[in-house]
Amino acid sequence: MQSYMNNIQKNNTFFELLHSEDRIRLGIIRNWLGQSLETPAFIPVATNASIRALDSISVKNLGINGIFVNTYHMHLSPGEEVVSELGGLHKFMNYEGVIFTDSGGFQAFSLGQAIIDGVGKIASVFSKEGKRRNKDQQKLAEITDDYIVFKSHIDGRIIKLTPEMSIQIQQKLGSDIMMVLDECTSPLASYEYCKNSMERSCRWALKCYNFFKENNIPNQYLYGIIQGGHYYDLRMKSTEFICSLDFDGIAVGGSLGTSKENIAEILSWIVDYLPQDKPRHLLGIGSIPEIFVAIEHGMDTFDCIIPTRYARTGTVFVLDSPNFVRDITSKYYKNKESKRYDLPIDENCQCYTCRNYSVSYLNHLFYVGEICVMTLLTIHNLHFYNTLLKNIRKSIKENKYFEFKQLFLNRMIEKLE
Amino acid sequence: MQSYMNNIQKNNTFFELLHSEDRIRLGIIRNWLGQSLETPAFIPVATNASIRALDSISVKNLGINGIFVNTYHMHLSPGEEVVSELGGLHKFMNYEGVIFTDSGGFQAFSLGQAIIDGVGKIASVFSKEGKRRNKDQQKLAEITDDYIVFKSHIDGRIIKLTPEMSIQIQQKLGSDIMMVLDECTSPLASYEYCKNSMERSCRWALKCYNFFKENNIPNQYLYGIIQGGHYYDLRMKSTEFICSLDFDGIAVGGSLGTSKENIAEILSWIVDYLPQDKPRHLLGIGSIPEIFVAIEHGMDTFDCIIPTRYARTGTVFVLDSPNFVRDITSKYYKNKESKRYDLPIDENCQCYTCRNYSVSYLNHLFYVGEICVMTLLTIHNLHFYNTLLKNIRKSIKENKYFEFKQLFLNRMIEKLE
Repeated sequence: MQSYMNNIQKNNTFFELLHSEDRIRLGIIRNWLGQSLETPAFIPVATNASIRALDSISVKNLGINGIFVNTYHMHLSPGEEVVSELGGLHKFMNYEGVIFTDSGGFQAFSLGQAIIDGVGKIASVFSKEGKRRNKDQQKLAEITDDYIVFKSHIDGRIIKLTPEMSIQIQQKLGSDIMMVLDECTSPLASYEYCKNSMERSCRWALKCYNFFKENNIPNQYLYGIIQGGHYYDLRMKSTEFICSLDFDGIAVGGSLGTSKENIAEILSWIVDYLPQDKPRHLLGIGSIPEIFVAIEHGMDTFDCIIPTRYARTGTVFVLDSPNFVRDITSKYYKNKESKRYDLPIDENCQCYTCRNYSVSYLNHLFYVGEICVMTLLTIHNLHFYNTLLKNIRKSIKENKYFEFKQLFLNRMIEKLE
Repeated sequence: MQSYMNNIQKNNTFFELLHSEDRIRLGIIRNWLGQSLETPAFIPVATNASIRALDSISVKNLGINGIFVNTYHMHLSPGEEVVSELGGLHKFMNYEGVIFTDSGGFQAFSLGQAIIDGVGKIASVFSKEGKRRNKDQQKLAEITDDYIVFKSHIDGRIIKLTPEMSIQIQQKLGSDIMMVLDECTSPLASYEYCKNSMERSCRWALKCYNFFKENNIPNQYLYGIIQGGHYYDLRMKSTEFICSLDFDGIAVGGSLGTSKENIAEILSWIVDYLPQDKPRHLLGIGSIPEIFVAIEHGMDTFDCIIPTRYARTGTVFVLDSPNFVRDITSKYYKNKESKRYDLPIDENCQCYTCRNYSVSYLNHLFYVGEICVMTLLTIHNLHFYNTLLKNIRKSIKENKYFEFKQLFLNRMIEKLE
């Protein structure tokens, strides 16, 4: 009955699956405003309702049709009431595209156990130092069976977050896609911890689901989240439970191990049990190799800070370098010692930055601390990711995905258009 | 002979005086690339070959046709050789407009006596604390009769700057308008100090002039600088000497006192002795009232960090507020306590920021430290300054300057178009 009510209030074409073969999917997500997002798509992170160093119109002009906003951060500033008064996130930030919000649960990890363990999704995968425990650090989040308690990283005030509150906040934020409250476990967490946490996340998912259905929330869609760390039986139980509820989409979260092989393994356990007709989001992924893994395991969208954070440290994505990155802050790029100094980051790249500025100039701006370089490099990196995904979608359409992947990963693609 | 050589190599229409009445002038400056700048014009400061928080194309798109680059900073990074290898400042920063460079002399003050005196051009005029001596601070610049010695604020290396070197560096930077090496005196400097300094600045101006003429530098123009602090006889002697040489333009520098009345007085001493057919630049000015003073005293261009620096602290220019500024970082602008929260900074403003974002959103971005707000506010402030100057030029053309000024300063103008 409730489900029927929801269906007629909602756009029936929230997700359209256009193609599916060998687990690889093509689809379209549409929000109630009629704005659409072709999948598979990379969703950049706009923590504070702003992709760092870029304004919303510039983001849209890059062809980016989906972004990922952090509920916990928005709750702290400006608060969901302010966003709601201003007409919700779309109006508040003036962004015309599909807006995802997380639940705040990830911060229970990133401000909690991650501080103690000295890990984070990014840290655990990319840190050269590897994992390190750091017991002197103080947690800013604690988890109980009924809620998460945060100590605000802005003003120190104490915030309790229940599953129902998380949905209420996301409802006021007016995102298109909401997530249930869950806990993202540390890659160092024991089986016992992950089991308890997964069971709690399932209970919280049900609470969120019920609250969402009872309140008949229109124009917004809710994803359940599969947890269970890197333990087969936990992932399977979580998958079974989450898929038993009529969520609008399914997300996969939590620790996915420390390599793309780990991610592939975990996704391969569960992918064939996910409903075909619902969109699937992989949380906090990823690097370029991880994106291929996600797509081959049936994921439709994935969010990550990599392209934007890398940009702010001077690391740019290029086609012709190992790991597809180049650090343009090196003195080498300053002058004619480098053959590239008077060329753009990538001669074949059609982004605003590459059409207008040389590596030497960008190197100089970085050296002297001019913040406009962060904007310019963010534009380049997001253009790279977005164009890569466009090329991947095209290759899927043309039944040439594996061919494209082979050429791309072997650096035999000269140009992404 | 040399002068003749120079004339034929150069664009004869470097400066065209279109109109002059009651000392108020209208003109056009054209560089050798054919890029033109209508005067009177405000010239924003691009210290490191970048207007802070904006890239060059965005600057040009704002209709800004002249910028002011600091030679000392460019000498430190990336160095004039690198800029020269890349084809000069226009190519290096990809800016199509008239580029001014200073001589490095201002940094002899700002990194020298200004540190000891706790003053600067901005500090002395705007600081609420007023002037304060700060003897514990260490100078990073010392001046001798023959050169300035700097200790680099980046890496501590020692740099000697002679008049000839300053011209050589500016030549390699490839700016359109170069300045002679001078000393900008502190507003606290004694008559004796100002006299010696002015005489040295005159000797240096001659050295720069001779070096410039002997080296037959094409496509670039050199301005002499009038110094002399707030002392009548020193300003007159400096004016006489600088105007006796065939510079391409005349700049007025140094301490101009602490109020717009002081500036008016100093300019009124000298303006009628300046050659009519040469462009005149007022260094380091200014606030909005100062701009009117400058224009009424025959100045054509003036550079200042005010609109850009104010933007980065959250202070925006508006038509309906005392001093024409509003601090949008106040909590008041966060939500509906303020009537303005869901409106742009200025409803009548046509800038990119006002067309797209509300005060509440900008306030939020500032509060959470998202750097894109600096870009957005810089766009607004530069649009305000640039549109104001456009309106002033129009009023001069239509013989309505004083009428416009009266309405504007009494906040009776609702819209700048």
